[in-house]
Formats: sequence, C-alpha cells, structure tokens
Amino acid sequence: MAIGRALLTDPDILLMDEPLSALDVPRKRELMQYLESLSKEINVPILYVTHSLDELLRLADRVVLMENGKVKAYDTLENVWNNPLFAPWKGESEQSSVLALPVYLHNPTYKMTALSLGEQQLWINEVHHQVNEKVRVCIYSSDVSLTLSKPEQTSIRNILRGQIVQIVPQENRIDIAVLVEGHKVWASISKWAFNELHFAQGMDVYVQIKAISVV
Amino acid sequence: MAIGRALLTDPDILLMDEPLSALDVPRKRELMQYLESLSKEINVPILYVTHSLDELLRLADRVVLMENGKVKAYDTLENVWNNPLFAPWKGESEQSSVLALPVYLHNPTYKMTALSLGEQQLWINEVHHQVNEKVRVCIYSSDVSLTLSKPEQTSIRNILRGQIVQIVPQENRIDIAVLVEGHKVWASISKWAFNELHFAQGMDVYVQIKAISVV
Repeated sequence: MAIGRALLTDPDILLMDEPLSALDVPRKRELMQYLESLSKEINVPILYVTHSLDELLRLADRVVLMENGKVKAYDTLENVWNNPLFAPWKGESEQSSVLALPVYLHNPTYKMTALSLGEQQLWINEVHHQVNEKVRVCIYSSDVSLTLSKPEQTSIRNILRGQIVQIVPQENRIDIAVLVEGHKVWASISKWAFNELHFAQGMDVYVQIKAISVV
Repeated sequence: MAIGRALLTDPDILLMDEPLSALDVPRKRELMQYLESLSKEINVPILYVTHSLDELLRLADRVVLMENGKVKAYDTLENVWNNPLFAPWKGESEQSSVLALPVYLHNPTYKMTALSLGEQQLWINEVHHQVNEKVRVCIYSSDVSLTLSKPEQTSIRNILRGQIVQIVPQENRIDIAVLVEGHKVWASISKWAFNELHFAQGMDVYVQIKAISVV
C-alpha cells in the first residue's frame, strides 16, 4: 500500500529502510517475492537498507557496505560478497561464493540448465531465464570437495578444473579457494584430507560441487 | 522454575507438553540444551509432547508417533525416523537418516572421531563421548553422492561400500537408499546421473558423504 502511494508521486528514487525487518518468516518470504518483481517492473531505482543477508542476496544489484557510518565498499553484489572486507558479515561457519553467470543452454529432458563459466559449465536445476541472461547462484564451501584426479562414474554433475589460489586454516577445517575460470570457489575440507593430499597454492585440482542454490 | 518445583514432589514421571513452542529461537536453543542435560541428570522419565523435529532429534530416546489421536508407531527415535510411516513429518525437500553409532576411536591430532558402522567407520568432528558410547548422527540425502568405482585422491573422508536397496523417483531428483552395514543411507541424485550410471536395485556402490551432523 505505502509503496503504491509512493509510486503515484512519480519519484526519482524509492527509499526502503528495513521494510521486512518486523515481519514473520512466511510474510517476509511473500513480500520479498513481491519486491523482487516490483524492482523489475518499475523503472525507479530503489535504495534498500537492510541487515539481512537473505534480502541482500535476493534483491540487491549493487551494494553500498556501511560500517559505523562509513562506506567500506561500493560495487556489484557479487564483488562485495566475495570481497574479504565482507567476511565479518557472512559469519565464520562457512565460506560462500556468489556468481552471476549467463545461461548457456537448457536441458528440458532432465529439467536442468547449464550456466557458462568460461570454457566450462555449471549445471543447476532448470531456471526459466533466456540464453545469455545472467543467473545468480551461491555456492557454499561445505558443499564443495576437492580431488587430485578427475572423478569418474560419479553422480556429482559439477566437476570443474581450477587452481588453488588461497588456503585459510580455520579452527576445525581448512578453507581453500580455487580459481575456476576467473571465479573464486571455496571448499571446506578437513585437516586430515589437507595433509594427506598435500594441497598447496598453485596446484591444479578438480572441484566437486554437490549443491548449488539459485538466489 | 516450574520444572524445579515439579521435581521437588519426587514424581514418577514428568509430562512436558510443548514446553518450548512459545519461545523465540535463541531462548529455545538455550532451554533445549538445559532439557538435554536435565534428562541425563535426573532419574525420572520425561514424556515430552512436541511437533518440532529439532526437539525430537535432540531430546527423544523413544518415540510414540501419534496422528488423529491414534498411535502410528512406538520405537527408538532411529527406527521411527527411518520408518516410511514417518516420511510425511519430514517433508519432501530431502530424505535423511538418523543413526546411533558407537564411538570406535578418537583422533586427537585431527580433532575427529570415528564411529563404528559394522566393519566400516564413519568420521565426524571430534565429540567427547567415551569409546563404545553411542552418538546420534543425521545424514541428509543432499550431502550424499554415489559412485561406481572407489573415489581416490579426494578430500571427502567418508566413503562407504553399500548396496542399493530402494529407488524413489521424486519430481526433480531420484532418491536412492543404500544399505551400508545394515543401515539405510539416502542419496539424492539427478535424473541425468541416474540414467548415465544405470543405477539399479542390488548394485554395489560407493557412498560419498560430504557432511554429517551430530544431533
């Protein structure tokens, strides 16, 4: 209602300050969907203030990251999300990468869609985007494992080649960033696996991704 | 407070009817931990009524499953959880298996614990149970993949041999139950992987488990 009234005044910009923060989960989900389609329909920029990572992932194109009243970063959601400056907001329980990738092809038989990742493809459950339209996906490090030789005869569909670019020991695991066609993908592995397989920076590895969420 | 007063009367049984249902998440978490240790300290059986799967997993030893006032099942939590009768309560988004397995050994160097699964072992993050004491773990089908040949040089620690005993096509995936040393472990795989690898009942496969949660 309030949004409808605001739009009647033909504004240059809409300011939404934590519009969903007071709502319970089902109502929040419903309104998030509404805001998502609204932002595509109207031709008015929306300045959306939020503390919620869900809302950020789902609704933001570009992000101004503020802390203590100061701007820490201003960039596309993908770049801000993957920026080390943003790590404190994501929490310590796992790493994640957000990628915006163009649709490469649809496979209607299996109801799956391939996204382009440079020369390689990333398969996700079917989405109804056009070819070349970008889809935003999030890959959590707990869904990613690494192998030295190419896995064969496996149910995992997403196996990508890449190179280790960063190793971050955590308390109970090791987080490893693998550069896949210019995109960083994080894997969380055990110290045991790390020592046994002698992973090191610059090493070529295969990245196995068990699950990818479309946001 | 109410629990303290009830215990002063030296009761034969404690009845708790949805004690946490009205609380917000952080308070719920805190009280769940309290109830968990309480149930170990006092020697009084607790009859706990709940609609919450979290509370069930965390607190129940034996479960009376009721629907429309009728008892549908009465057994250990593990057996009720893995019973097809219980499927409607778990939701359709994924399958899961709950296993109660004895501690086999601790590896203090890597802060990991091995549980016995027949002749095989299941590795989890270190727990402080004694050897042979049982630990309850939950394995979600979305964390499990299947291979026909044994995966080598991989960061995944839990690779178990088993035999396919059940195949359940879902709308967007295939759920496959693999019998590992007498325990059913569910894997969710794509139709594409299913067709390519020709999985069938009775087939010997390797089960790769990327994540296991201790409950």
